[in-house]
Amino acid sequence: LAITIAIDCMGGDNGPPVTVPAALEFVSAHKDANVLLVGVRDLIDAELERELRRDAGRVQVRHAAQSIAMDESPAAALRGKKDSSMRVAVELVKSGEAHAAVSAGNTGALMAISRFVLKTLPGIDRPAIVSVLPTVTGGTTYMLDLGANVDCGPEHLVQFALMGTTLVSALEHKERPSVALLNIGEESIKGNEVVKQASELLRAGNLNFIGNIEGDGIYKGRSDVVVCDGFVGNVALKTTEGLAQMLGSFLREEFARNPLTKLAALVAWPVLAAFKRRVDHRRYNGATLVGLRGIVVKSHGSADRFAFRRAIERAFEEAQNDVIARISRRLQPAGASA
Amino acid sequence: LAITIAIDCMGGDNGPPVTVPAALEFVSAHKDANVLLVGVRDLIDAELERELRRDAGRVQVRHAAQSIAMDESPAAALRGKKDSSMRVAVELVKSGEAHAAVSAGNTGALMAISRFVLKTLPGIDRPAIVSVLPTVTGGTTYMLDLGANVDCGPEHLVQFALMGTTLVSALEHKERPSVALLNIGEESIKGNEVVKQASELLRAGNLNFIGNIEGDGIYKGRSDVVVCDGFVGNVALKTTEGLAQMLGSFLREEFARNPLTKLAALVAWPVLAAFKRRVDHRRYNGATLVGLRGIVVKSHGSADRFAFRRAIERAFEEAQNDVIARISRRLQPAGASA
Repeated sequence: LAITIAIDCMGGDNGPPVTVPAALEFVSAHKDANVLLVGVRDLIDAELERELRRDAGRVQVRHAAQSIAMDESPAAALRGKKDSSMRVAVELVKSGEAHAAVSAGNTGALMAISRFVLKTLPGIDRPAIVSVLPTVTGGTTYMLDLGANVDCGPEHLVQFALMGTTLVSALEHKERPSVALLNIGEESIKGNEVVKQASELLRAGNLNFIGNIEGDGIYKGRSDVVVCDGFVGNVALKTTEGLAQMLGSFLREEFARNPLTKLAALVAWPVLAAFKRRVDHRRYNGATLVGLRGIVVKSHGSADRFAFRRAIERAFEEAQNDVIARISRRLQPAGASA
Repeated sequence: LAITIAIDCMGGDNGPPVTVPAALEFVSAHKDANVLLVGVRDLIDAELERELRRDAGRVQVRHAAQSIAMDESPAAALRGKKDSSMRVAVELVKSGEAHAAVSAGNTGALMAISRFVLKTLPGIDRPAIVSVLPTVTGGTTYMLDLGANVDCGPEHLVQFALMGTTLVSALEHKERPSVALLNIGEESIKGNEVVKQASELLRAGNLNFIGNIEGDGIYKGRSDVVVCDGFVGNVALKTTEGLAQMLGSFLREEFARNPLTKLAALVAWPVLAAFKRRVDHRRYNGATLVGLRGIVVKSHGSADRFAFRRAIERAFEEAQNDVIARISRRLQPAGASA
C-alpha cells in the first residue's frame, strides 16, 4: 500500500528551496511513497525544475495561494486563511487523500488548524507535541508535551502518558513502554500540586508507570516516555538546545586556540565528526502532534533539507505503522471507563 | 575585617572527609577568613588530625550531635533536630558569630531551617535558590528559583527578579543588571497565566526587564538574571546536568572506539582537558538561598572537595560584598510602596 504525505511547502524559515528538495529526496528513497506538495504553484514548480524529476509520477502539486507567517496569531490563521498551504495540507489528511501532513510553519497555527480540521481522538481533551530524544544508553525516549499545553491539569498529564505509551508501542513495538513523570525529585511527595495529583492517578492506573524522574533522567534513558506540561517540556527542550550549542562552541574554541591545538583538531577530526553526527539534533527533527484523528508532524522552523527530510520520514513511519488506528484502539477502554 | 563561615560538616553524601579538607583549603587561601566546623566533634577532629593544621587558630569546631538525613522531611528536621549540624550552622549566622553558613545537606531542610531561624527580608514572602551558570559569551547568568518554590504566583516571580537583580549588582558590581523571564516564546502573549501576569508586572516596574527568553537564551547569556518558578528552574538545571553527562559520555566513547581514535585522543588530550576544565560544573557549585536575613549557601549533595570549596568561596564572596545589607537597602522602596 502506497503512503501519501502532504507537505506544507511554504512553512518554516526557508520555504520551497528546502521543503521541495527534501520531499524529492524522500520520494526517491521510498518507492512506496507519494508526496503532495502544497503551496504557491509557481514557487514549487521553480524548485521542481531545478531538481531531477525521475519520480515525477509520485510527486503532485496542490496550489494554495496563502501562507501563514511564523509570528501570526493562531486564531487569525485559523479564521482568516482557509487557503493557506498549512490548512490545505491538513485538509488532505482529513479527506483521506494523504496519510499524513508535515509542516515547518507556525506551531500554534498548526495545532489550532489540526485540532479544528481533524478533531481530537475520543477521550483526549488536548493534543500534545511529542518528540524523540536520544539517551546515553544509545536508545531513545519520547517526551510530551513540548509546548502545546501550558496550563495543564493532572488529567491532561495522564492523557499525555496514555498517548505517549500508545505511540511508543506502535513505533518501537514495545508491549508495555515505561512512563515517567518529570518532577523535581523522585519521591512521590515532591512536585507542584498538578504533578502530585497526576502521580497518584498514574499510580492507580494500568500504564507501566515507573514514578517520577528528575530532568537528568530524560537523557539517562530511564523511561520510554517522559510526561510533563507543555511549559516545562518546552523549557527543558530549549535549554538542551542552548547548552548543546554552548558546549559545541567551547569545544571549537579550544581546538582553534593556537597552531598546536589546530593540529590536534586535524588529527582528531574523524572522531569529532563522528561525535558531531551522533549528537546532530537534525536527526531528531519532527515532532508529532499526537491525540488527533490524523497524523501531523511539525518540523523545526529553521530546518535545512536534511532535517526536513527527517520530519517527512517520521510522518511516513507513523503512517506505515498505522499509529492513529492503534492509538484509537488503546483509547477505547479509557474512553469507556471515563 | 575577618569573615567567619559556619560549615555544616555532616551534610551531603560524603560528610567530614570532604567538608573538612575543603574548609581547610579555603582557610589556607584566605588569610582574612575563619571557619567554624559544625558537627560531631570526634569525626571532625579525626579529619583535622589527618590534615596539616597550620591555620589552626582560624579553625574552630562546634559540636552538634545530630545530623539530618538527605531524605528526611523538612518539617521533621525543623521540629525534631534542634541540635543538628545544619541547624547549629544557621544559628551561628543568626547570632552573628558567623557571616554565612554553608551546607551540602538536604535542600528542603536547609530552606525550612534557614527561613525559621533567620526569617525573610522585608517585602519577601519566600526565599529562592539562585545559582550562577556559565554562558557562551564567557560571562555568567544568575538563575532563580531553582527548586525552593514549586507553586508560584506572579508576585513571587517579581520578587525573584528583585532579589536576583540586587544579588548581581552586589556581586558583579553592575548598576542595572538585565532581568529576563523564562518563557516558551519571546512574545509577551506567550506563556502560562502566571508568567503572563508576571511579565506585565515586570514591564510596569523599574527593574531593567528585557522581556521573555526561551530556554536556549539561558546559555546564550541574553540576560544577567533569569527568573522562573522553582519547578521549571529545577527541571531546566537538572536537564542541563543530564545532557552534559550524555555528551561527555558520547565524546569519550568516540575517542575510545579503536586504536586510531585512541591515538587521536592522546594528541588531543591537552585540548580535551582544557575543554573539560572549562565546562566543569563543579566550578559553579554553591547555590545561594536568597531573600533571608543572612547568607546561606547550599552545595550539591555529591560535591567533592573541589566543588565544596567553591561553595564556601561563594559564601565568602557574598559576605565580603555585604550582600544582605545591599539587598535590604534595595528592598526598602519596594517594601514602602507595597
